[in-house]
Amino acid sequence: ASPVAAGKPKALPFAQRAALCSNPVGRRLFEIMEQKKSNLSFNPDVTKKAEILRLTDLVGPYICMLKTHIDVVEDFDWDMVEQLRALATKHNFVIFEDRKFADIGNTVQLQFTSGVYRIAEWADIVNAHLVPGPGIIEGLRQGAKASGRDIGLLLLAEMSSKGNLATGAYTEANVKTALEYPDFVIGFIAMQGLAPAHPHLAHITPGVQLAKGGDALGQQYDTPEAVVGLKGSDIVQVGRGIFGAADPAAEAERYRTAAWAAYQSRVQASTA
Amino acid sequence: ASPVAAGKPKALPFAQRAALCSNPVGRRLFEIMEQKKSNLSFNPDVTKKAEILRLTDLVGPYICMLKTHIDVVEDFDWDMVEQLRALATKHNFVIFEDRKFADIGNTVQLQFTSGVYRIAEWADIVNAHLVPGPGIIEGLRQGAKASGRDIGLLLLAEMSSKGNLATGAYTEANVKTALEYPDFVIGFIAMQGLAPAHPHLAHITPGVQLAKGGDALGQQYDTPEAVVGLKGSDIVQVGRGIFGAADPAAEAERYRTAAWAAYQSRVQASTA
Repeated sequence: ASPVAAGKPKALPFAQRAALCSNPVGRRLFEIMEQKKSNLSFNPDVTKKAEILRLTDLVGPYICMLKTHIDVVEDFDWDMVEQLRALATKHNFVIFEDRKFADIGNTVQLQFTSGVYRIAEWADIVNAHLVPGPGIIEGLRQGAKASGRDIGLLLLAEMSSKGNLATGAYTEANVKTALEYPDFVIGFIAMQGLAPAHPHLAHITPGVQLAKGGDALGQQYDTPEAVVGLKGSDIVQVGRGIFGAADPAAEAERYRTAAWAAYQSRVQASTA
Repeated sequence: ASPVAAGKPKALPFAQRAALCSNPVGRRLFEIMEQKKSNLSFNPDVTKKAEILRLTDLVGPYICMLKTHIDVVEDFDWDMVEQLRALATKHNFVIFEDRKFADIGNTVQLQFTSGVYRIAEWADIVNAHLVPGPGIIEGLRQGAKASGRDIGLLLLAEMSSKGNLATGAYTEANVKTALEYPDFVIGFIAMQGLAPAHPHLAHITPGVQLAKGGDALGQQYDTPEAVVGLKGSDIVQVGRGIFGAADPAAEAERYRTAAWAAYQSRVQASTA
């Protein structure tokens, strides 16, 4: 953890941040963002395998990251994982399984590597709540190592839902702990930029739509301009805003354009 | 939330607490505890179906609750769920799926009711972290309602692992929120009694062994005497302490006896 230089740290371009990553997935994520001019992550939060694959193939060209909730899929099978991996290669994106691990180290290691889903065998990125303490990071890191694959971890430093408790000292503990695991923690789920002095860490913000709003179960939405342009986050996470649209590909391109413009304006404002 | 009367509230016997529950599973849990003189919960945290079923049948006579991590089972199938339900009937215990839901309301509702595991179709009890805010309770409650089954929720108000963040204001928020959902929240995962003035709420404490200690990934162990007798929790949650023993049934009976004696001494001390 290097001390912040006097004044606000510059908002570095993603290409420069890639070079600062010691985790290979963190580096690749920034590289893909630069290559595809996309800081858009998409989650096809529907429950049928065929529909998830169809949406992913449609939206794939516009995204840097696909976010999955593998455990809501009714007809999950291993072929689905293989098809998702093939789509990740075809369209050049990383796969982030939004498992929100939240147990003690020994248990999350099993949940990560074993069971029906064997997440460590196909996900590039997973995430975890820090509420169980740093043992959860150790357990997942051991699981990643055992898999022999490159995997990065995101910590849930903040959340988008109403009345959430990921605030204040809780958020600060996430930032502090992330800096202790630079080889494995590649960033945060957060509502804003939390660690501008540590540009190897990426910020992914859920609850983004082109129009502000919310749902009946406490989800709250903000816009790409606000999230990336003003609040210093890096990647916008969009689900219903895209898969609920009449033309998901066209809608994904709208989100990509808006989020990328917001990123460009932030970097330009910082270096001006 | 009625104010606590002057002085320490009495430690009511489980039979009397059963009558105070508005959630049917909460009531049944206290009834089973009284019937079987058991405040022992067991988790067979191994990854093979046959071994989980074998351990459960061995230990079943001594427990009020079976705790599962269904997503670590390598050869999970629906037959396993049916066999677990049959064992729950045979031995008279409730099944608590330790899923630690930790997402926004819309997502946890899908994770609870859909996917490969369809937890809402077989679990009597599930648990959740409150970090996403009260929407997580609403989402799970809707999922429980849709299932048509009686299901109770435990909130993770405290944890047993080193450096965990479920402390202070975070724990207090869990207690306060639990009191707002008496029809659904039946208690807490906690290291001690948190709500003695609200005896419809049960306290389940993980990380219990007959000898104090810890593991290499931050888990910390305390004894039944300390947890139930001194700290006011109700149910001890034991995993490795039992399934790692040469004779799991005999070891379960040792834990049952120790935890029940600790409960009796607490109630007697309170009414003396």
